[in-house]
Amino acid sequence: MKVILIGSGNVATHLGGALKAAGHDILQVWSRNANHASALASLLSAVPIDNLDDLNDNGDIYILSVADDAIADMASDFPFKDKLLVHTSGTTELDAIKSGSSLTGVFYPLQTFSKQKPIDFRNIPIVVEGSSESISSLLLSLASDISDKTEVVNSEKRRVLHLAAVFACNFSNHLYAIAGEILAEQQLNFDLIRPLIAETAAKAQVYAPSQVQTGPAARKDFGTMERHLLYLENKQEWYKIYKVLSESIVNNTQ
Amino acid sequence: MKVILIGSGNVATHLGGALKAAGHDILQVWSRNANHASALASLLSAVPIDNLDDLNDNGDIYILSVADDAIADMASDFPFKDKLLVHTSGTTELDAIKSGSSLTGVFYPLQTFSKQKPIDFRNIPIVVEGSSESISSLLLSLASDISDKTEVVNSEKRRVLHLAAVFACNFSNHLYAIAGEILAEQQLNFDLIRPLIAETAAKAQVYAPSQVQTGPAARKDFGTMERHLLYLENKQEWYKIYKVLSESIVNNTQ
Repeated sequence: MKVILIGSGNVATHLGGALKAAGHDILQVWSRNANHASALASLLSAVPIDNLDDLNDNGDIYILSVADDAIADMASDFPFKDKLLVHTSGTTELDAIKSGSSLTGVFYPLQTFSKQKPIDFRNIPIVVEGSSESISSLLLSLASDISDKTEVVNSEKRRVLHLAAVFACNFSNHLYAIAGEILAEQQLNFDLIRPLIAETAAKAQVYAPSQVQTGPAARKDFGTMERHLLYLENKQEWYKIYKVLSESIVNNTQ
Repeated sequence: MKVILIGSGNVATHLGGALKAAGHDILQVWSRNANHASALASLLSAVPIDNLDDLNDNGDIYILSVADDAIADMASDFPFKDKLLVHTSGTTELDAIKSGSSLTGVFYPLQTFSKQKPIDFRNIPIVVEGSSESISSLLLSLASDISDKTEVVNSEKRRVLHLAAVFACNFSNHLYAIAGEILAEQQLNFDLIRPLIAETAAKAQVYAPSQVQTGPAARKDFGTMERHLLYLENKQEWYKIYKVLSESIVNNTQ
């Protein structure tokens, strides 16, 4: 397919690379920032543009991969009302882009991307949705070109999927960061808990997490929890997080 | 060394296996529950006992690996006042077992263990502490037999290390569990977010987590956060967790 990327962030970068590797043509990369457009376009042998007026009308699919709160506005500026326009957001409804075209869809790769870290797209679940059955089928087929895990999921369910991802991924990462700060205050190296982080995630690949829950709260070891809270007394933010999560674990463990 | 395991839980099981594989002799396995003692003892070619009166006085090291709140009591029942007695707890002070022997130590493997899942001990950090310099050295040497990451850490710092581990591991695992429940309510499969969990932990092996934080809170995308909270309105426990973690991410992201 002839693909046009509107956006040059983490998702556009990785998705563009995977589509190109699967044999698709990336015609253009748009970014408001001309340098960003050029940087990604050169990786993808595409033409960089920084003005939507320069959008090539010869694309088969226009992938809008910008910040969630910019999606609707960008879509309303999309000039080709009969071209397939899709966004890549977990949390934005399909309808948010319907002002842009009569043919719309969602192409949401469920992964956390950093520009600097390469990633194997075949293991990344991609959930798609189309404004018609035939668009859903087309997007499912495109997704299958780059991933082994594809599914049609409607907007309502996709939002819940995104919410679950926030808990499992964004929040866990923040807990890693807090752990790092707690260690740093005592001149302890973050390396000491990296294997623990890896193993906890590895367990979740195989088991239901609730069934392998460990730690003071799961043991209802209130003495240890009290001592931890005492240590955190002067860090109200961490204190609150410790308390609310421990209470939730206690309530959900037999 | 001639090792005697007092306890037959997850830590005793994995630690006993690693020590045996490194060429040490496991003489006995004690458990209050005779079946548990037998099960682990047979794996380690050791003698099972369920009464501390039967403890062999010929051991070089007695490893007390029981629930945190049972450690002090068990130690006070330890019969050999001049034999090396160590516990394996992250959160218990060395002094908690000093009533048991004049020679005490801590041998704390920083990992989450499940009996069913085999694990490579060489990557597991082991932090040790002795009631004397020579005991610290001996424990460091024993730790090096099974792990490539060993360090002497005193009780105060070890407690902080354990607290950090609770944040990074126990709490993250609980967030995985919540994500699983959120998905299940919409008949969505947990498999959809397993790659995300794996990648988030993989990133933390290489980067400082605070530098790769993603998600609505890191983007200060208050619209998405509001919609998520609205969805969680009838789940007060998840609502509170979402709110306190999102606020903390917002406060700690530029």
